[in-house]
Amino acid sequence: MHKKLFIPGPTEVVPEILEAMSVPMIGHRMKEFSQLMEEVVPKVQKLFRTRNFIVVSTSSGTGLMEAAVRSCVKKKALHTVYGAFSKRWLDISKRNGKEVDVLEIEWGKGVEAEQIEERLKKGDIDTVFVTHNETSTGVMVDLKSIGEMMKNFPDVVLCVDAVSSLGGARLETDEWGVDVVVTSTQKCIALPPGLALASVSEKALERAKEVENRGYYFDFLVFKKYWDERRQTPTTPSISHIYALNRQLDRILEEGIENRWKRHEEMAEFVRAWAREHFELFPDEKYLSVTLTTVKNTRGISVADLNKELAKRGAAISNGYGTLKEKTFRIAHMGDLTMDDMRWLLNQINEILGL
Amino acid sequence: MHKKLFIPGPTEVVPEILEAMSVPMIGHRMKEFSQLMEEVVPKVQKLFRTRNFIVVSTSSGTGLMEAAVRSCVKKKALHTVYGAFSKRWLDISKRNGKEVDVLEIEWGKGVEAEQIEERLKKGDIDTVFVTHNETSTGVMVDLKSIGEMMKNFPDVVLCVDAVSSLGGARLETDEWGVDVVVTSTQKCIALPPGLALASVSEKALERAKEVENRGYYFDFLVFKKYWDERRQTPTTPSISHIYALNRQLDRILEEGIENRWKRHEEMAEFVRAWAREHFELFPDEKYLSVTLTTVKNTRGISVADLNKELAKRGAAISNGYGTLKEKTFRIAHMGDLTMDDMRWLLNQINEILGL
Repeated sequence: MHKKLFIPGPTEVVPEILEAMSVPMIGHRMKEFSQLMEEVVPKVQKLFRTRNFIVVSTSSGTGLMEAAVRSCVKKKALHTVYGAFSKRWLDISKRNGKEVDVLEIEWGKGVEAEQIEERLKKGDIDTVFVTHNETSTGVMVDLKSIGEMMKNFPDVVLCVDAVSSLGGARLETDEWGVDVVVTSTQKCIALPPGLALASVSEKALERAKEVENRGYYFDFLVFKKYWDERRQTPTTPSISHIYALNRQLDRILEEGIENRWKRHEEMAEFVRAWAREHFELFPDEKYLSVTLTTVKNTRGISVADLNKELAKRGAAISNGYGTLKEKTFRIAHMGDLTMDDMRWLLNQINEILGL
Repeated sequence: MHKKLFIPGPTEVVPEILEAMSVPMIGHRMKEFSQLMEEVVPKVQKLFRTRNFIVVSTSSGTGLMEAAVRSCVKKKALHTVYGAFSKRWLDISKRNGKEVDVLEIEWGKGVEAEQIEERLKKGDIDTVFVTHNETSTGVMVDLKSIGEMMKNFPDVVLCVDAVSSLGGARLETDEWGVDVVVTSTQKCIALPPGLALASVSEKALERAKEVENRGYYFDFLVFKKYWDERRQTPTTPSISHIYALNRQLDRILEEGIENRWKRHEEMAEFVRAWAREHFELFPDEKYLSVTLTTVKNTRGISVADLNKELAKRGAAISNGYGTLKEKTFRIAHMGDLTMDDMRWLLNQINEILGL
């Protein structure tokens, strides 16, 4: 039996979009493909709320997180760390030989603009890495205030992991001044995994020109060159995903981006209310994610057993991440899930746990 | 109208496999995904004729070509160059800050074991890069003799780009002693693009442990760790492609790998005979590719016009690559194409050109 996915990615994909993955192939050096890209990219820009250059990468979001590191860090990176994925971004910088400084925050909280500002005053940092939504803890940070603060540091590039937020939570790339925004297709965009997207500002592209050892596959400037010259990708892309993305962006724009954000907020509030009633919320109230709720397992239930029972009813949620396993569990309300889906899921959980 | 693809990738995908791209999602950290991987990987090993570790990467083949560079080159790389793709591999090494030596061969010919042997005698090279099938020229090299020669250099790692050969032309990874074999799914394996595969020997894995700055997304050792511990991939993979690969490998194994090679040889001989009759072959007869025929445009036809006419009849071939545009054209006989397809295509071309 198929399990409806209430996990923080891959998320549930509607049948229409699954079908769009089955289009016959075209050549990626043919006009047809350039035309497809010219259709898709402006829609991606709308979703990102940006006029910046768009990278379409056949990889997971992690690939473009590495791209941001390799293309943007010249002197020294500041990584803000408050969960497994922000920690892994730091690790990626280290593995690429970058000099790093770390701002560690207690898990369950997020970074504040003032904390970053304090570190930037020394003047040695040229790139800041911020995770908009920490999938491991269900923490979402106030990116707007971080972006606005960073306008006082015009030489510093701001890179944001929006893998589990973009398309579900408000993110105003240009208005907030975010230089690099990275996302994947299998979270709030509700496509199958296999494609990653990024918006890259002029400032970030200019920086890349000064950075050595950018490699090839994930070099923002190589993507830019192929876009400028051919409206194509540097290497053979996942054409199936790009077709499906094109269809899904039509669906998203038809719903309306603001309406999509509202739907995510409504689902989040509904799940939070349930969690407060029967358990507790894991994150500090100030940092509650709009796309994912992490519940503190105050009842000491077996999350693994709960998921086994849910599987029989055709659903899956996520256990806590890493050391938070069994101490928390995570319910994603991402992508194309609806209030009806969330009501159904919580009813199932209530029945199983006798709540 | 859909154009049947006689281009060297993406190749035509049969409807059954296109449909397999539409499976509903599962979580990539769920048991179901580990089970899928445990089903797929042994079949990939059969196709690669190897017992070596298999990397399943959500990227194009280029990504794993970069992986080979970053994971294997410690001291100095020897790149053998005889076309656009072997040249690009050299470029990838340079862009990753690797020290390189280059063995340049005239386009239309391939590298010989003795030429590599000569360069290896100096003792400064630790990794050799060979392109099995040069997609830009239609040249295929004698990998068997290269592999056998290299057994005299046990400290040197042999990396092979088999992107446009594996699954179509004979390649005996273990018997020939190839340490790293890289391929993509959209050529002879006849899946949509979006996934790359590599086999990596113990020797190459041991080498990687000594190489710094391997990065994350394409680090062979990161793939190995996730396989050993979880039978999973390090980052969210293209689940759709892996499902489709699983189905397609069943089809390939049902046909029989040797039969598949034979079919490719038969198609190659048929197209070569036609090319010799009406044009000339571009590559030296010693290096004719089994998966792709590059025809010298001795009649001075307009290849662009020919392709326009073919498009009306529902087919596409490839113009010459880069500087070989209009001077050559390329007919791929790769993947799931059959003798009937090749007969039909050449009949169309004969009619259009009045041959």
